[in-house]
Amino acid sequence: MTKWQEITGGVTAPKGYQASGVSVGFKRSGRPDLALILSDVEAIAAGVFTNSQMRSVSIDYSRQRLRIKHSARAILCNSGQANTGTGKQGILDAEESAQLLAKELGIDIELILLASTGVIGQRINMGAMRSGINYLVAELSKDGSDAASQAIITTDLVKKSIALEMMIDDRPVRIGGIAKGSGMIHPNMATMLAFITTDAAISPHLWQEMLIRSANRSFNSITVDGDTSPNDCLIGLANGQSRTHAITEKGKDADKLEEMLTAVCQHLAKAIARDGEGATCLIEVQVTGAVNEKSACQVAKTIVGSSLVKAAIFGRDPNWGRIAAAAGRAGVQFDQDLLRIQLGDFLIMENGQPLEFDRMAAIAYLGQASQGAYLQGDIVLIQVSIGHGCGKSVAWGCDLSYDYIKINSNYTT
Amino acid sequence: MTKWQEITGGVTAPKGYQASGVSVGFKRSGRPDLALILSDVEAIAAGVFTNSQMRSVSIDYSRQRLRIKHSARAILCNSGQANTGTGKQGILDAEESAQLLAKELGIDIELILLASTGVIGQRINMGAMRSGINYLVAELSKDGSDAASQAIITTDLVKKSIALEMMIDDRPVRIGGIAKGSGMIHPNMATMLAFITTDAAISPHLWQEMLIRSANRSFNSITVDGDTSPNDCLIGLANGQSRTHAITEKGKDADKLEEMLTAVCQHLAKAIARDGEGATCLIEVQVTGAVNEKSACQVAKTIVGSSLVKAAIFGRDPNWGRIAAAAGRAGVQFDQDLLRIQLGDFLIMENGQPLEFDRMAAIAYLGQASQGAYLQGDIVLIQVSIGHGCGKSVAWGCDLSYDYIKINSNYTT
Repeated sequence: MTKWQEITGGVTAPKGYQASGVSVGFKRSGRPDLALILSDVEAIAAGVFTNSQMRSVSIDYSRQRLRIKHSARAILCNSGQANTGTGKQGILDAEESAQLLAKELGIDIELILLASTGVIGQRINMGAMRSGINYLVAELSKDGSDAASQAIITTDLVKKSIALEMMIDDRPVRIGGIAKGSGMIHPNMATMLAFITTDAAISPHLWQEMLIRSANRSFNSITVDGDTSPNDCLIGLANGQSRTHAITEKGKDADKLEEMLTAVCQHLAKAIARDGEGATCLIEVQVTGAVNEKSACQVAKTIVGSSLVKAAIFGRDPNWGRIAAAAGRAGVQFDQDLLRIQLGDFLIMENGQPLEFDRMAAIAYLGQASQGAYLQGDIVLIQVSIGHGCGKSVAWGCDLSYDYIKINSNYTT
Repeated sequence: MTKWQEITGGVTAPKGYQASGVSVGFKRSGRPDLALILSDVEAIAAGVFTNSQMRSVSIDYSRQRLRIKHSARAILCNSGQANTGTGKQGILDAEESAQLLAKELGIDIELILLASTGVIGQRINMGAMRSGINYLVAELSKDGSDAASQAIITTDLVKKSIALEMMIDDRPVRIGGIAKGSGMIHPNMATMLAFITTDAAISPHLWQEMLIRSANRSFNSITVDGDTSPNDCLIGLANGQSRTHAITEKGKDADKLEEMLTAVCQHLAKAIARDGEGATCLIEVQVTGAVNEKSACQVAKTIVGSSLVKAAIFGRDPNWGRIAAAAGRAGVQFDQDLLRIQLGDFLIMENGQPLEFDRMAAIAYLGQASQGAYLQGDIVLIQVSIGHGCGKSVAWGCDLSYDYIKINSNYTT
C-alpha cells in the first residue's frame, strides 16, 4: 500500500493557496524574476535559515518576523539581486517591498515573509519592484505554482516542484513544494530556496520541529560544492484548509505528516543535487553501522562532498580507495577493519580490505547512471557500513566535472 | 638582523645525519622509490600523524613505536605502495621491512620508524624491499638529502626541501626538512609526508609539543582539495650533535628553535600547496580580528578551501562575494557589518559592503601572481578582517583548474 500519491500543482496543490511569477525587470535576461505564494487564510509558518554569518537582508527580515509571529499569509521572493551586503539601504528596501505588497494585497505587513536570490552586493531594483508588484498580485492563480517556480530560479537548468497527497480522517491532506538551487552558482548567485505549503492543520511548534528534522534529512544532506549561501532558506506554510482535525501533539498523524513532508523535501533536495553545476549524475551515499544518525550523516556527507570521490565518479572510476579515505577523515571514530563499501551491486571492500570485482562492469554501471541523470532519475549508489551500530543516514550530491570549473571560473563582470 | 639563514643540504644539513634514496622497483616508472634518513646517534623523535580512521600500516607502526620510545635513529620511507587497507599481511610486511633494515644497519629494530606513500590497497612489494635494502644502506651519504627527497615523491612536480641555520651559544644549530605532497593525488596516491632533522639538543616532551604547534601553523593550514590521506605523517628527529646546551624548558632558546622549526614547516607546507594538483598559483589567506587563533584559522582554511573561491581565482576573477560567503559559513560567529576584505593591494569590501575598485588592475594582479607561481614564489594574497579581536592566522592553498579534474578523473587502472 502506498502511503501517499504524487499529484500535480506544486505549492498550489494544497487547498487554499495561490501563486504567481512574473518578470518585472530584476534579471537582465527578461526572464521571470518575482514570485508570490499566498494563503487564502492566515497559515502557521515556520522557517529554516542559513547559518552563515554573511546573510541576506531578506533572511534576517523573515527570521525576525517568524520570531515574533508564527503565522503568515504571503511569501514574496525576488531573483536577480540577493540583497546581501547592502547595509542599511538593503533593510529599507526589504521593508518597502513588504509594505508595497501588504498594500496591494490589503493585508497586515506582519503576514508577509521575504526571500531573495541573485548577485551578492546588489540592492533590489526598487523601481522594478514598485512598478511590478500590482502585476504580480493580478497574476495570482490556483495554477500559479509553475510560474512561481520559474521566477525563483537563476542558473538552474530545470524547475524543481512536487506535490504529495495522503488521507487523514478520510480527507485528503496535501503538501506541495518548489525549490531552486544548483551550486552556490554562477557569478555570485545564491544557493538554495525552498517553499513548502500544506493544507494540514497543525500547531506552530510541531510544524517548526517537523520542518527542521525534514530539512536535516533532505536539504542539509545534499552538497554540490560545500559552499553555503548567504540566502539559503526554507519556509513552510500550513493553513489548515484540508479541514482535518488539528495535529497538536506527537502521534500517528504527526508521524504520517512528517514522513510526507520529508519525502517532499527529499524530492526537492535531490532535484537540486541532480541539477548541480556541471553535474552529469546524482550520487547517493547510504551509511549504516554508525553509533547514531549524526555520525552516519557526517560520514555520508564527507564522502559525497569529497572532490576526489566526485572527480573519480565523473571519470567513471570505481575508486574505492577515495571512498574509504573520505570515510576515514570524516571525524567519526570507527574500526577500519569493519569498513564495507558497495558501489551499485558491486561489493568492492569488506573488512577494510579491497575485494576483486568486475571492474569493467562497475565502470559500465557508472556510465549508465550518468546517461540517465536527467531522464529516469538514475543514480550512482554508494553504500558504506562502518561498524555494527544502528545509526544510518543518506546524503546526496553530484560529480565534479570540467563544466563546474568552466561555470565558476568566469568573470563576474 | 636576520634570525636565521637558509643553507643547503636539506635533512643532511644538520650535523650527524646521512640519507639516501634509490630505486628498488616499487614504482613501475623505475624512478627512485625508497628513502632512508639516518642519525649517527640516537635522536629524540616525535611525530604528528593523520587523524583519519583509515590509516596506513606504516602510520600505526611508527605511532606505536613513538608511544613506547621517544627516540629513533632511522626513518625508512617507500613510495609506490601505501600499505593501507592491507590487513594482517600489511602488518607482517611492515615488521619485516624494519627487521631487514635493522639487520643491515646493525641497530635495534626499536630505533626504526616507517612511512609509506602510494596506491591505497597495495602491499609493499617485499621482493623488491628484500633485494634493495642493502643498496639503500650502501648509498647513505652526508649529501643524500636530495636523493631521499626524490624517492619519497609520487606525482609531485618538484622536490620540496629546506634547511635553516641560527646561532645558539655561538654555535650553529640547524633544522632541515624534506616533504612530499600535491593533493591526495593521482589514482589513490597518498598526500603528505614530511621529515625534519635538527642537531639541536632538546627534551622529548618539548620537541613533541613544538612539532605539534609548528604542524598546526604549517601543514595543518594548507589545503589542496580538502581530502586527508591515510598516510599523512610528519616525523622530526633531534640528535643533539650541534653540541649546544640541552633545551629542557620553555624560554628564549626554545622559542627561537620553535620559530625556526615553524619556518621550516611553513616553507615545506607552502611548497606542497604551490605544487597542488593542477594549481596555477599559491593562495595565502590572512585572517585577523578574530576572538582567538583557532577561530581565525577556521575562517582562513574555509576561504582557502572553498571550491568557488579557488575556481574564481583560476578564472582571475576578483570575486569578493565568494570570499565573504566562505567566511560567513566557516562556523565562526562575527558581525558581518565589520567584514573587511583586501585582495593584494585592492580593498574590495569594508563594513560588510562592497567598494568600488579598479577591477582591471585587480584582474591583472591575479594574472601576474599565477605566472610567477613556480618562479619567484608570487602569491595571491587575501586579507580578511572579521572584527576587533586579537586572533589571527594564515592558511595556504591553490586555485582549482581544469587540470585538477583531468588528473583526478582518470581511471585507477
